Amino acid sequence: MIEIYGDSISGNCYKLQLVCAQLNIAYQWHEVDILSGATQTDAFLAMNPNGKVPLVAFGDGRNLAESNAILSYLADGSHLAGRDAYESAQILSWLFFEQYSHEPFIATSRFIIQYLGSPEDRLTDLEAKRAGGLKALGIMEQALADHVFLANGRYSIADIALYAYTHVAHEGGFDLSDYPNINAWIRRIERQDGFVAMQARG
Amino acid sequence: MIEIYGDSISGNCYKLQLVCAQLNIAYQWHEVDILSGATQTDAFLAMNPNGKVPLVAFGDGRNLAESNAILSYLADGSHLAGRDAYESAQILSWLFFEQYSHEPFIATSRFIIQYLGSPEDRLTDLEAKRAGGLKALGIMEQALADHVFLANGRYSIADIALYAYTHVAHEGGFDLSDYPNINAWIRRIERQDGFVAMQARG
Repeated sequence: MIEIYGDSISGNCYKLQLVCAQLNIAYQWHEVDILSGATQTDAFLAMNPNGKVPLVAFGDGRNLAESNAILSYLADGSHLAGRDAYESAQILSWLFFEQYSHEPFIATSRFIIQYLGSPEDRLTDLEAKRAGGLKALGIMEQALADHVFLANGRYSIADIALYAYTHVAHEGGFDLSDYPNINAWIRRIERQDGFVAMQARG
Repeated sequence: MIEIYGDSISGNCYKLQLVCAQLNIAYQWHEVDILSGATQTDAFLAMNPNGKVPLVAFGDGRNLAESNAILSYLADGSHLAGRDAYESAQILSWLFFEQYSHEPFIATSRFIIQYLGSPEDRLTDLEAKRAGGLKALGIMEQALADHVFLANGRYSIADIALYAYTHVAHEGGFDLSDYPNINAWIRRIERQDGFVAMQARG
């Protein structure tokens, strides 16, 4: 059985809980508390020198880092992956969009507000993230005007990756009420077979 | 023949020139000047709403954005892709590392210094990017102590993606002289069949 090291407050980690639930993949979960520095210990850095969760350990010494690489690996060959080279590439395109143009703005704003408590010395940083977050949401809203799901109109790991932080964007100060297509897409994802909601750490 | 929209000053665009040269993929190049706003015109935004290069157009209305998604698409099935699911996932892990933990620090520093001329109002931003860039280089140096290439020791698109901005890191203020493994890896890549150097815009 694979072992997943993750923090339940993290959308990047939640992506793996959702894909495993939808593909009936068994796993053992190891809770790693980002806020207390558990990703920066020598033991953790030996598994992932970048000091980030999620991380998957296969039990034979092989590990895999980067949420969207793990998502791609776990979904490989399933109905949540692309059916041909171009569809797979479109999915990947959304996955890279998520990590470069969405997560650094929306997830990081949520982290500063919800988990750091909006400290004074991060307010300039928070403000600087606003435009990028709004741009990312605008691109998604436009894409979802023509398609019920992001990549080629088919539910895939692209939707899982973008859902993770979009559905909690309000926790990062991004009001979603002006994005009807995104809201309909969120409800559509939550009706998919095997859907599980993001759980806060107990 | 595929059409590539790119700016020759961009390492993200150079990745595609290198992979096409090494895989003998013919393409038509359209130079798009980032600095003059050519990625923000209505015509360009209709092709890529995110307003970024590189972009590939297939000539039948299909487009593909995100350098590392395009790189994966072009290398699919070749010796520059993974040989099995795990090796492919390792390559992807490095591609996501590049976009999240390397490019935003090293490429952006290079852009601010080389192309914007280090304007006063970007100096705080530039300084803030230093730690992330050094961390990324440290992770690469460590990985290359055990392996001649990044993913499983085999030359792949992971090396192409990371080479693009690492070999010009000095232009972003990152002195590579303290990274012997990275330097040896750079020389190793430059000896690969079909290697082409990054060209400045003429």
